[in-house]
Amino acid sequence: MFVVPELDVAASEAARDRQGRLTKPTGALGRLEDLSIWLSGAQGQCPPRAFARVRVVVFAGDHGVARHGVSAYPPEVTAQMVLNFLAGGAGVNVLARTLDASVRVVDISVESDVPGAPTETTRHKIRSSSGRIDLEDALTLDEATRAIAAGAAIADEEIDGGADLLVPGDMGIGNTTPATVLTALLTGSEPHTLVGRGTGIDDTTWVRKAGAVRDACRRGRSYVDDPAALLACVGGADIAAMAGFLAQSAVRRTPVVLDGVVSAAAALVAELLAPGARAWWVAGHRSTEPSQHAALATLGLEPLFDLGLRLGEGTGGLLAVPFLRAAVATLAEMATFDEAGVSDRDS
Amino acid sequence: MFVVPELDVAASEAARDRQGRLTKPTGALGRLEDLSIWLSGAQGQCPPRAFARVRVVVFAGDHGVARHGVSAYPPEVTAQMVLNFLAGGAGVNVLARTLDASVRVVDISVESDVPGAPTETTRHKIRSSSGRIDLEDALTLDEATRAIAAGAAIADEEIDGGADLLVPGDMGIGNTTPATVLTALLTGSEPHTLVGRGTGIDDTTWVRKAGAVRDACRRGRSYVDDPAALLACVGGADIAAMAGFLAQSAVRRTPVVLDGVVSAAAALVAELLAPGARAWWVAGHRSTEPSQHAALATLGLEPLFDLGLRLGEGTGGLLAVPFLRAAVATLAEMATFDEAGVSDRDS
Repeated sequence: MFVVPELDVAASEAARDRQGRLTKPTGALGRLEDLSIWLSGAQGQCPPRAFARVRVVVFAGDHGVARHGVSAYPPEVTAQMVLNFLAGGAGVNVLARTLDASVRVVDISVESDVPGAPTETTRHKIRSSSGRIDLEDALTLDEATRAIAAGAAIADEEIDGGADLLVPGDMGIGNTTPATVLTALLTGSEPHTLVGRGTGIDDTTWVRKAGAVRDACRRGRSYVDDPAALLACVGGADIAAMAGFLAQSAVRRTPVVLDGVVSAAAALVAELLAPGARAWWVAGHRSTEPSQHAALATLGLEPLFDLGLRLGEGTGGLLAVPFLRAAVATLAEMATFDEAGVSDRDS
Repeated sequence: MFVVPELDVAASEAARDRQGRLTKPTGALGRLEDLSIWLSGAQGQCPPRAFARVRVVVFAGDHGVARHGVSAYPPEVTAQMVLNFLAGGAGVNVLARTLDASVRVVDISVESDVPGAPTETTRHKIRSSSGRIDLEDALTLDEATRAIAAGAAIADEEIDGGADLLVPGDMGIGNTTPATVLTALLTGSEPHTLVGRGTGIDDTTWVRKAGAVRDACRRGRSYVDDPAALLACVGGADIAAMAGFLAQSAVRRTPVVLDGVVSAAAALVAELLAPGARAWWVAGHRSTEPSQHAALATLGLEPLFDLGLRLGEGTGGLLAVPFLRAAVATLAEMATFDEAGVSDRDS
């Protein structure tokens, strides 16, 4: 269903060659050089062009486990934060304004409807919350399939609207619990080693969360080869939609900057849905969640920075965008040794 | 001579308090929160204002050791690169354009005069190159004193011109050799453990460089309590000017983002010239040079990112600027729980 194209090897090779002729020691721009080579391959041209539209899509959804004491915040916060996103007051909104990007929030499975939300936010809603995954399925298989398709449709909408760099964001009280379950199952990790502090939970809450993760892992472990069934059993509609979004972005040759623990879990599922999709992604930041580290390691992605962020919303992905812009600009605009009349090391 | 003021504790405390009321889990913005508190203290107001003028000053100078095989590039490259800076083709120029900053290059001690360079580049020139520090003094004591004063004057010029965030940059073939010597002496490290690959030297060149560092350390070790004499013995005019620039920026209450190995060495000297100045600095990136790691550890500064950069020019400092802008913007613009009607964890 998702057929992922390869990056353009010729454009990447041209970028690697050009890096060697710019007025700097070979390799002196470190990972910026790697990013420039990757982006040349993604865009199929060297040098790559500056991004025209950097877009964050925040997938909002509630989770049944949040009613059972796995978070520091009450579940009502999800809907309240959707309003905050729409009003432009959340962290990701502020960062997007500062970093010349824009934010779309989509209500995939928020428990209550969000009053006054525009159609672009509401039209892909799958259901009210997702099931309590330690005891019951998150979704029906049909809902999981529809959520994946909704995420893919959102990717199409954004790319058709001109987005050429995408950042997935998450908002949902309790969402690190299903993210940790999915990651434990898809990386073969001991579940309790991946359980983090989420929004900042205390020890008692951590024990409850670890128990929920353990129970959900038992429920989900027979579905690790079937991404839709896995999402139905122990995921959630918001994470399913994000996985579809990531898969379709790769199909559409659009690079993505991953964010934290939720997007890393969705990325593991997306790589199952769309093998090879990970070639189209870069990891923005290293979060404080051990589950994110495990997921990125399995995907072979090394984060670009670590500021100890644990906000979600796409903030850690968005903050990596200046590095990507710097990679594009240096490859495109720096003078070569010949152009500048600077002696190279061999002269 | 340099009297460094303290940061504004009340403004920092106000920033810390406001961070706790923004619509996010406490601490979820990680080091961005620390940066916002620091910048509030530096500006003496909470929230801090957006930077009006971010300015990179590249200190260019040659070094006698470069004529004796410690670099992968010929010494002529320093003057050629000054022309490249003036033409806008170097890495730091491209990054500055991308990141809404500007670049000034100053010829402090380039071996040859740079044809056609403007007065703002040439008026603080101290001498042609600096002495070969493994065998002779880099500078006279008078030259060292004048170079420190020149750097302080450049800081005054920039701050009087409206700069409210400064990034020191370096350009000079061979300059990692004196930087490593200064750092070894001021951190009490074994010299050879700090010798890096600079612009990318091979093993034979590394051995020559390590020998020059060792010999210079023997020459300089009796001056570790006298920064001007130390710079005269084993520094260089460019590094002396950068040290004066860093010291005076602190005197003028202007925050600075340090760059790589040369600015870290200059910062160690500046902290001797102006005790307490380090409170006004943040470390931009972790470079590939072990000497930089030792200097930053002694200064108690933890870099904000590590992309494996080793270009100098201020590039690694400049690339941290989006993080500082993000820190300012999130503290200033994010909604509080009360404003957004979002439930806090205690409600």
